[in-house]
Order: sequence, then C-alpha cells, then structure tokens
Amino acid sequence: MIEKEHLDYLTSIVGEENVKADKAHLIAYCYDATRERFEPDAVIFPRDEQDISKILRFCNENKIVIVPRGAGSGFTGGALPSNGGIILSLERHMNKLLEIDMENMVGVVQPGLINMDFQKAVEEVGLFYPPDPASENYSTLGGNVSENAGGMRAAKYGITKDYVVALRAVLPNGEIIKAGKKTIKDVAGYNTAGILIASEGTLAIITEITLKLIPKPKFKQTYMGVFPDVNKAMNAVFKSLAAGANPVAMEFLDALVIKALKEKFPQVELPENAGGILVGDVDGSSQAEVDSQIQTLKEAFAKFGSVGFIEAKDEAHGNSLWFARRNASPATMIYGTKKLNEDISVPRSKLPEALDAIYAIGEKYGFNVPCFGHAGDGNIHVNVMVKDKTNPKEMEDGHKAIEDIFQMVCDMGGTLSGEHGIGLSKAPFMNIAFNEAEIELFRSIKKAFDPNNILNPFKMGL
Amino acid sequence: MIEKEHLDYLTSIVGEENVKADKAHLIAYCYDATRERFEPDAVIFPRDEQDISKILRFCNENKIVIVPRGAGSGFTGGALPSNGGIILSLERHMNKLLEIDMENMVGVVQPGLINMDFQKAVEEVGLFYPPDPASENYSTLGGNVSENAGGMRAAKYGITKDYVVALRAVLPNGEIIKAGKKTIKDVAGYNTAGILIASEGTLAIITEITLKLIPKPKFKQTYMGVFPDVNKAMNAVFKSLAAGANPVAMEFLDALVIKALKEKFPQVELPENAGGILVGDVDGSSQAEVDSQIQTLKEAFAKFGSVGFIEAKDEAHGNSLWFARRNASPATMIYGTKKLNEDISVPRSKLPEALDAIYAIGEKYGFNVPCFGHAGDGNIHVNVMVKDKTNPKEMEDGHKAIEDIFQMVCDMGGTLSGEHGIGLSKAPFMNIAFNEAEIELFRSIKKAFDPNNILNPFKMGL
Repeated sequence: MIEKEHLDYLTSIVGEENVKADKAHLIAYCYDATRERFEPDAVIFPRDEQDISKILRFCNENKIVIVPRGAGSGFTGGALPSNGGIILSLERHMNKLLEIDMENMVGVVQPGLINMDFQKAVEEVGLFYPPDPASENYSTLGGNVSENAGGMRAAKYGITKDYVVALRAVLPNGEIIKAGKKTIKDVAGYNTAGILIASEGTLAIITEITLKLIPKPKFKQTYMGVFPDVNKAMNAVFKSLAAGANPVAMEFLDALVIKALKEKFPQVELPENAGGILVGDVDGSSQAEVDSQIQTLKEAFAKFGSVGFIEAKDEAHGNSLWFARRNASPATMIYGTKKLNEDISVPRSKLPEALDAIYAIGEKYGFNVPCFGHAGDGNIHVNVMVKDKTNPKEMEDGHKAIEDIFQMVCDMGGTLSGEHGIGLSKAPFMNIAFNEAEIELFRSIKKAFDPNNILNPFKMGL
Repeated sequence: MIEKEHLDYLTSIVGEENVKADKAHLIAYCYDATRERFEPDAVIFPRDEQDISKILRFCNENKIVIVPRGAGSGFTGGALPSNGGIILSLERHMNKLLEIDMENMVGVVQPGLINMDFQKAVEEVGLFYPPDPASENYSTLGGNVSENAGGMRAAKYGITKDYVVALRAVLPNGEIIKAGKKTIKDVAGYNTAGILIASEGTLAIITEITLKLIPKPKFKQTYMGVFPDVNKAMNAVFKSLAAGANPVAMEFLDALVIKALKEKFPQVELPENAGGILVGDVDGSSQAEVDSQIQTLKEAFAKFGSVGFIEAKDEAHGNSLWFARRNASPATMIYGTKKLNEDISVPRSKLPEALDAIYAIGEKYGFNVPCFGHAGDGNIHVNVMVKDKTNPKEMEDGHKAIEDIFQMVCDMGGTLSGEHGIGLSKAPFMNIAFNEAEIELFRSIKKAFDPNNILNPFKMGL
C-alpha cells in the first residue's frame, strides 16, 4: 500500500483532480483485455512530460512501483498492476495530436492519442498511417509503440516499429531523453528508440512519438481466394507472395471458422466449397496497379490450388467480403464457453506445417482449435476452445495444449507472440523462446534503464 | 601489449594460421577510411561462431580489448584499435552467404560477406536487397549493420536497419544469443537486434544476419532535374516528395560541385544553366508505373522552380547522367589539398536553410564548402576544403567550421551522422547532439552488454 505522505506529495505535483485512490477508480483501472484483475494503490493522470519527470524522480527515490497505461486494451496484462503500485494513465491529458508535418511527412503525437483518431487526421490531409491493430478504435499510440502493435496491413506495410521515427521519454530517474530525430537517417549514438519499442512499459515512459507517414494510396480493391482446405490456402500464401503479389492484407479463415461463421451469421458471403479462405485488399496509386495486383494474386492462387476467386465489385461488396474475417472471433464461440487464444507467428513458409501441428495438438487433448489471422505475415490467431470452463480438468488440458503449441512454434523458428507481447500471460513461457543468456541480457538491459525496478516490474518474466 | 601466454591460448583456439602478430599484419590492420593509424597487438581470424565465443570468453576474463573489423572501410574509425588490443577480423572465414530463402524472402549471411556480392546473388534469383552504401563494392554486411549503413536508394527503400530481420551474436562473456526470427512479426522479449544495429561493434560480435529481401523492380529510369540554384533544388526535394513523388534516389549537386565537375571532367553531361542538380532513378513493376513517377517528378520540379528536366533515353544515357554524381567527390579536390567531409543529416524541409547556413559558415572562415549527397533523405555530404593542409591555422579553422556546422545542424533538429557513425572522429561532438542523461544512458547500455569494457572501448565517446 502506498503511504499517505507519498500520495500527498504526488498530489502536490499534479493537483488533487489528477490523483485518485477511491475504490471506484481503483476498480476502473484494475483490468485489461485479459480480464485478470489487480487493483492499483492509486491512479495518477500526469498533465505533461514535466509532471511525469517529477513523479518518476519521486517514485524512484521512494521505490514506488509505476505501471504506465494507455487504453488498457492489451491482451497479455502489460498494463496490470500485478505487484501493486500506481497506475500512470496517459489517456486523460497526454492524448494530443501535436503536429502533422506535411513537409517531412511525419506526425508528432502524445502517447494517449487513439490510433484511429490519428489515422483519420492524417488521411484528411492525404497521408496514411498504416499500422492498424484490431484495437485501432480504442488503443492508444503509446500502447501500440510499447507493444509494437501489428495489424492486418502488416503484410504490405509492416508494423508499428517500421513507423517510429523518434521518441521522447522519461527515464525512471526522472531524466528526459530524446531518441531519434525527424531525419530519415540518424546513426549517432545507440538506437534507444529501437529498444523502447516493444519494451512493454518496463524501461521508460514514452511522452512523445514521431511517426512516419506515407502518401495515401488512391485505389483499393478487396479480393477473396477460395481453397478446398486450409493447407492449400497456407501454401498459396507464401508462394503467391514469392511470385510477386504484394497485397495490403492477406487474412485467412480455416474450415472450423468457416463452419462457425455460416452457423452464426447466415447472411455471411462465403462460397459453398470453401474449406479455407484468403481475404484482403490490394492498393496502389493507380487503378492499373490495383488491376495488376489482383491479376497476380488470381493467377498465383489458381496455380497453387484455389477453387474460386472473388473480386469486389465496389466498396459495399468489399465490406461484405470482409464481414467473414471481421466476425471470425465471435463466431468461434459456438465451439465452447471459454476461448484460450494466442497470437503465435511463424515464418510464412511454415504456415501449412504449423496449422497441421496445431490441429494435431487439439486432437490430442480433445479440443476444437479454430484458427484465423494474418497469414500474409505468418501470424496465426489460435483458439483452443474449452467446452466447459467450470471443468478444472478441461481447463488444465487447455493450458497444456497452449504450452504444446508454444513449444512447437518455437521449434519451428516462430515466436510466442506476433502482436500481443509477453506481459504477465506469456511470462511463464519465456524459457521456451529464449535461452538463459538471452533472458539474462534482458535483465541487464532492464537494470540499465531501471536499476530500482520501479517501472512495470516482473513483466515479461523479468 | 598482449602477453605471450594469452596469444598462445588464442592460437590454441583458432590455429596458428589464424593468429597474426607480425609487423606486416599489424600494419595491414592499423587503418581504415579515416587514414588514422593505430596498430593492434594482434590480428585474429575466427573460423566460426564457436571460435568467437571462446575468444570472447577468454578475453573477457583477461580484460583483453577486442575490436571487430569487416573491410575497414568506415569513415569514423569504428574499426581502429585506438586503445590497442586484438583486431577480430571477420573477412577471412566468416564471409559466407548461408541461404537465400525464397519462400520467406530473406537472406542469411555471415558478417564478412561483401554487400555487393550479396546484392548480386539475390538479384540472380529475382530478389532485391536495397541498401547500397557508396562502399557497396567492398564493405561487409556486418559493418553495414554495425554502422546502420545508408546509401542512395534510402529515399525510397530505407536503410540497413529496415532490412535486418534477425541477428545471431556473441556477447562479451562468450554467450551466444539470437535476436529476432525469420518471422515478420515478433514482439517477444526486448528488441535486442534493434539496439545491436548501429552499435559500432561496442556491444556484441554479430555472427549471422538475416536480411529481408523484396521482389526486384523490373523497370527503372534515370532522371535529372536542373535548377538555377541549390536553394531552389532543395525546396523542390521535400515539396516533390510531399506531392507524391517516390524516387529510388534523389541526389543533389550544388553550384560549387557543378563547377568543379565541369573543370575536372569536361565530358560530363551537365546543362549550361545548372546552378543546382537533382539526379536519381525511379523504378516500378511496370513501365506505366515508371512513366507516372517520371511525370510526377517533372511536374513537381517545374512547379518548384526547375529550368530543365532530362529523362534518360536508355541505360547508357542513364549512366551518363549519373556520371556527375558519381564523380562529385574527386571533383571537389580542385578546391584544396585536404577535404574535411562530414555526413550530417537534417529533416528534409530544413535542407534549403541548412545549405544557406553551411555556406555562411564557410564564408566566415574563408573556405569553399562544396556540398552534394542524398537530398531525398536529408543527408548532406559537407566538404570543408582546406587549401593548404600544411598550414596549422587553416586546419584549425577547418575544424572550427566543422564544429559550427555540427552545432547548426543539431539546433535544426538534425544529426551528427546520417551514415558514417560516431566512432572516434565524431566522439568529441557527442555533447552537441546529446544531453548528459542520454550519454549516461548509452553508458549504462554499454555496461549491460559489456561490463568489463573489452569490446571496442571508448568509441562513440563512451
């Protein structure tokens, strides 16, 4: 528990209206998308970078734990105060779009700005910010950077780290640092921004983000490739990309997801013969470029086993084709009362093999494991469906299946997480993915930034 | 000086043929492109990662300094044994292309492989590795990663860090780590690869590099924009890019460089009225795309003050247009006997202002300062031309001019180095670019990796 005199001092920094320790606030800030709950000792809403500097300096001296938080939409508990301490919420005040610099094609934002608000603002002036995590309507850019968020458009445009040009941050000792500049090239000093990205709030508090923007592609078209089974679809993913296809997104649905969609959403547009689906958009600066992309995909899919190919006639038709992918997650709930879902990622060429192995693990424990996700970048959303979540044996088996899947993925050269991070949820599996020297190095890096271990301690298994 | 028993032990690891301490070898490995000279105590040629692990473990225990070296083509002394110790040369054995993985579109290489050898190998199978530092014919990929090398194609395709997918490396304590995977997305653990890039051999020895490849663009065309002065050319750079132009390269020559080229190379193809030149290539997957790019550039240049625009008729004509840019560096030698050249970088919109300020600084000290470089990414090669290098006063003034330029660039939101790194040469200027907290953080990061400070110590001013 935090002492009253500490709370009083923090109040003297940010004002009474920005420090909350009443029950309602502690409950409001105790959860994230994992549905785990840990009540903080207090919630504090810094107004600016100077506030954060003062708060951290004080907390560092007094060894008070600080857990930074954006929208609390993370899937692995990164923003949960699992060891108590203070929630540092960036959403109330530090949520501004500071600048759209048209000349240098960058945007400068505060960490609490919501991803979609930024996307909309830059598109209004003809620019484009590609990273589009599924949480884009509510997750914050600070959270996106801290987790290195991906999204559907990663297949063509990459992920958050590919767009971070510069950061400002406050170190646990209260010192303010800049990492990177508005320049395209900068090789002076260590790439501090590079290590802050994906550091899950354990190294510093990010206070300002400079993001690369690109010209908004003028033309777009949705496609759907229909395959007899998911194995053929997965083969077509890497083979069509190697053949020169460059779609914005290449999402997949497996047979179980297709079945669930048809059952739960009878209006869904999915061909009768679909045992595996690839759906996505292509884009370009001219209609000719889009046409040529569609043609490349169609030919490559046909060569690698498709039984159908649908080109969206217009935007409404495109949205109708996307309906299936957008509703894949709720549809899977026909298979159980509890979903254990993980976001593993493998090299694209391993997708067919990985899917086969996932189904075999499901069979071993008696689970349906519907899969969908970002095939274009090898990122699979695996859903181990527990039929009766009140049955402890079944829940235990579900967790065993997940562990088997992690082991298989790492053996295959893949990773525990393509998008969601490690946080609390995947911390027990760090030793599957990393050797002792690697984990020891992570601990040394953590200590270099945060010697008193006040910033989001024990996350990522550190 | 290294002790004989240490040398004997190192010999027992790699064999006699791979440890050299004779004068000829010490001289052969005492220089780099800075022309500074520091003789090492010995040169060692590890055969593989295991050798490196054993060497580092031993040197760490015995506090023997290790300086990793690729081709020794660096411009800032990164590979110089300025504090003695052993040169660890990766060029003799660890120079193999291990794999071109067509399915996942990555190449796996050892650090000693020469950039151009890699480019050629991947182009033979229809793929493309864009980073093309001017040293591409002799610099190694390990050096490129350690310095985060750029190049002409950075305007469209980015720099080395944008292509590093994964690394293997040996820590100073001899432990072997993997950083990153062949997956597109990976957010498990800290982004260790991110901090190793551009770390100038101070944190770990990179033993294997996995590099992203893209499909080779099928069509290419060279263009040249002619401007009455460099200020107008620089304005056209960021304005044409903001207008949607996306050239592979956008290089510039200023009036002094143009004058020097005409004097030194009478055959050069440069219009009479050129006071500033932008030259480069556009590319695409179709001729239509290339045509549209050329059209966009031509229109934007005209709008922003060009007085001429040349489209290459064929490859030979393209090479002829490139001749001026390729020979800019030797041409500048008409202005002096010694060139003090630096590779500063500014946000693109600051290019006109930066050039004005550079010429003013030149005037203040009485120097010609011809400039050329990678305008498309804000990277200026500044050349302070010393007329008489035997005149100590003039040399001192030259160095003062360089310091003024660094200060001006940093005040403008630019960086000390766009491509060359800090090494020894720029170490004295670190305090212009970074505050005390930032430098202290760099020191902490260095210590986290290398607590005994055996790896390339005191480089980057650390």
